Amino acid sequence: MQNKIKPSLLPGFMELCPKEQLIFNDMVGRMIKVYEQNGCMPMDTPIIEKEEILLAKSAGETEKQVYRIANEKRKQALRFDLTVPFARYVVQNRNELTFPFKRYQLGKVYRGERNQKGRYREFYQLDIDVVNIARLATSYDAFVMSLAAQAFQSIGLESYVFQMSNRKILSGLLELLGVERQQEVMGAIDKYDKIGRESCEQEIEALIGKSKSGYIEEFLQLSGELEKMLQKLRVFSEKLRGQFCMEDAQPEGMGYLKMLEGIGELEEVVKTLKWLGVEDKNVKIELKIIRGLDYYTGAIFETIIKGNEGYGSICSGGRYDDLAALYTDLKMPGVGISIGMTRLFFVLKEIGFLENYRLPDESSYLIISLGDTLKECIAINQVLQRNGVKSEVYFNQDSLKKQLKYADAKAIEKVVIIGEDELKEGKLIIKEMNTGNQIKVNKEEWLANKSW
Amino acid sequence: MQNKIKPSLLPGFMELCPKEQLIFNDMVGRMIKVYEQNGCMPMDTPIIEKEEILLAKSAGETEKQVYRIANEKRKQALRFDLTVPFARYVVQNRNELTFPFKRYQLGKVYRGERNQKGRYREFYQLDIDVVNIARLATSYDAFVMSLAAQAFQSIGLESYVFQMSNRKILSGLLELLGVERQQEVMGAIDKYDKIGRESCEQEIEALIGKSKSGYIEEFLQLSGELEKMLQKLRVFSEKLRGQFCMEDAQPEGMGYLKMLEGIGELEEVVKTLKWLGVEDKNVKIELKIIRGLDYYTGAIFETIIKGNEGYGSICSGGRYDDLAALYTDLKMPGVGISIGMTRLFFVLKEIGFLENYRLPDESSYLIISLGDTLKECIAINQVLQRNGVKSEVYFNQDSLKKQLKYADAKAIEKVVIIGEDELKEGKLIIKEMNTGNQIKVNKEEWLANKSW
Repeated sequence: MQNKIKPSLLPGFMELCPKEQLIFNDMVGRMIKVYEQNGCMPMDTPIIEKEEILLAKSAGETEKQVYRIANEKRKQALRFDLTVPFARYVVQNRNELTFPFKRYQLGKVYRGERNQKGRYREFYQLDIDVVNIARLATSYDAFVMSLAAQAFQSIGLESYVFQMSNRKILSGLLELLGVERQQEVMGAIDKYDKIGRESCEQEIEALIGKSKSGYIEEFLQLSGELEKMLQKLRVFSEKLRGQFCMEDAQPEGMGYLKMLEGIGELEEVVKTLKWLGVEDKNVKIELKIIRGLDYYTGAIFETIIKGNEGYGSICSGGRYDDLAALYTDLKMPGVGISIGMTRLFFVLKEIGFLENYRLPDESSYLIISLGDTLKECIAINQVLQRNGVKSEVYFNQDSLKKQLKYADAKAIEKVVIIGEDELKEGKLIIKEMNTGNQIKVNKEEWLANKSW
Repeated sequence: MQNKIKPSLLPGFMELCPKEQLIFNDMVGRMIKVYEQNGCMPMDTPIIEKEEILLAKSAGETEKQVYRIANEKRKQALRFDLTVPFARYVVQNRNELTFPFKRYQLGKVYRGERNQKGRYREFYQLDIDVVNIARLATSYDAFVMSLAAQAFQSIGLESYVFQMSNRKILSGLLELLGVERQQEVMGAIDKYDKIGRESCEQEIEALIGKSKSGYIEEFLQLSGELEKMLQKLRVFSEKLRGQFCMEDAQPEGMGYLKMLEGIGELEEVVKTLKWLGVEDKNVKIELKIIRGLDYYTGAIFETIIKGNEGYGSICSGGRYDDLAALYTDLKMPGVGISIGMTRLFFVLKEIGFLENYRLPDESSYLIISLGDTLKECIAINQVLQRNGVKSEVYFNQDSLKKQLKYADAKAIEKVVIIGEDELKEGKLIIKEMNTGNQIKVNKEEWLANKSW
């Protein structure tokens, strides 16, 4: 006898049972419908790409996590997001695209992360991006967020919060303060949630000294409702201008202007989001978010499920003004947002959201053959299907009991039973699964009635 | 200035432009609808699995073509089909499944094949499988084929032919002839189309000697309409029985019985296909097909597009009685069929089928803002969308000409133009893109009319 293998998955990979898969697919279908209704085009790219393309702009962390193909001839790897391949696609196909090009894409991406709750090594992202040549209005930042909001609405998810910021504000602030080690300061802030306020502040102080770090601390603690927050940011930037800037043409002054630009963009996003019907309760300005991926240059956003911040962001993105720079001198600014479908599904399962998820009601039939009546069963099935009804024939010659159990397990509404007697008489037995009631009907009449 | 990278794909990977992607997705959507209407459940499995699972049953050819992940700790690879992971899934989740379990799955698979026309290294398969515990009626073989037929019908493809056989027939014949090197003979037949009749016959003769190879030649040349073919097979098997079998209990007799079993199954499939509405013109018995993958044990099928046989099979499958044997002693017979969506799409493009492919008609709008009217444009867009209309706002402040060009390129039917004058007057300009006609309407009336 052969040795048996234990059927199992690699750690960090998600797989769903059929009932969960139905819900997952329904969610994805609803979201895609939203994107299509808004004029986004479908896109698909290979999972494997040349390493030089995938890793050209990535920092150390990504490179450590990337899945590489074992191959002596060519360096190739699995994509770790859908944005880097998107940039490659847009440049490569730019003559066939209509700009501003709006796309959506569902696809699996791969990251060799440490195995932990809600983090998977293979996961689905559902992305929207808008990219244009030369110039892309700031209102598109709000547009992609509003599509994510519509996507959440389409599955009945209300308890989320977009946390947003604009990289120009912090970056401008650091320039204004004359801080040279910008990347390291941003790195420290990026860890804020993980290491806590105190450690974060200590790290920043060690990097740039106490006097300057005080301003960063003050900046990070700014909070309040949207309008209030924008006002606080303006007051804060004016205060620093008064203290640090001699002339606007100096580096400090440039920093101030950059800050102002970031605040202005944030303001425009807030305004446009309102117009687009995204409610204030779902939006927050959060200056502590950084987004690790280093291609963002303006707006950045993350999304948490209220009360479940610990699972991390389930939808993130931002503005990148220079993603195509790797390939071309053509300026192609873009903005994108990505729903982490696998993580979102995991969180929704954890918080019990899936238990109340309603799949669309649908009339469905099982046709049961008893004796030599398969041909007739198939014919009835065909009539039902031609009328758009979901219907299946049970082909195995099992007992009636077993076939009814099958219908029950699959939540099939009605069963048509055809035995040899019914066949001779031109009759059908119709059984309602939830009541158990069954009636014998005349076949021709029943088919003519179409009351299924 | 930075050195630029040429944006490109790895050889053997397909990528579509948005218009093609729309067609591809429409085709997949129609096919999936067929499968769901027939009670198939959705399934999804990881692209990366343990090597011990993927390669346990595979022969040398597969092993050479498999994509492996570079990893020192764990042997892992990319799936080369959806059937092997399906077997693993079914055993692993058997307590949560309803049997007979019918699934469909769309997914990418990977094979490092030589780069040639119609063969890709990454390609989509769209699979249906039915698996049961203990026993699965032969009519399910016809059922999965009929689903593929319905899938083809759903996209308007009529010029295909299922070529089918049953492994038991050839295998029984070889046993009856007392041939020991069965695998090698089957290997030679598998290459028939590639190397031609003469070379194939020479190879078989070299393997088993002239007297026996004559029977194989005769067998392979049997041809004719379905009923005729079944009759010829019966006559042929009786002839050989007369010449080779002394007693049924001898190995030769067992071979004869196996042949008979195969012919009987083929006959049942032919009969059930008719009941299921698959037309004779789309079905052929072709004894030369073998299907390389060695898990098949009964029915086998391939599908060619008439007049385009050179591209190979676009839909293949068969019966496997023992796929779960790797994991369990439980007998789990199954039958599956797989549409090679990427190859199918490639062939349909080559033969001009895509040019006449009709995407569903859909009313669509572009809302154009001229001057400071974006808020109003967004509001109009929302009304249209709430009524189910496909509609988008153009957010970039580009010239009217440029915006109309965008509408034209995206084949958008109607444009709503709102300038500052229209905003003040409560009017809208509606432009029909195909005629170029435009009228000014009262906003409230137009919205109330809902004549979009």
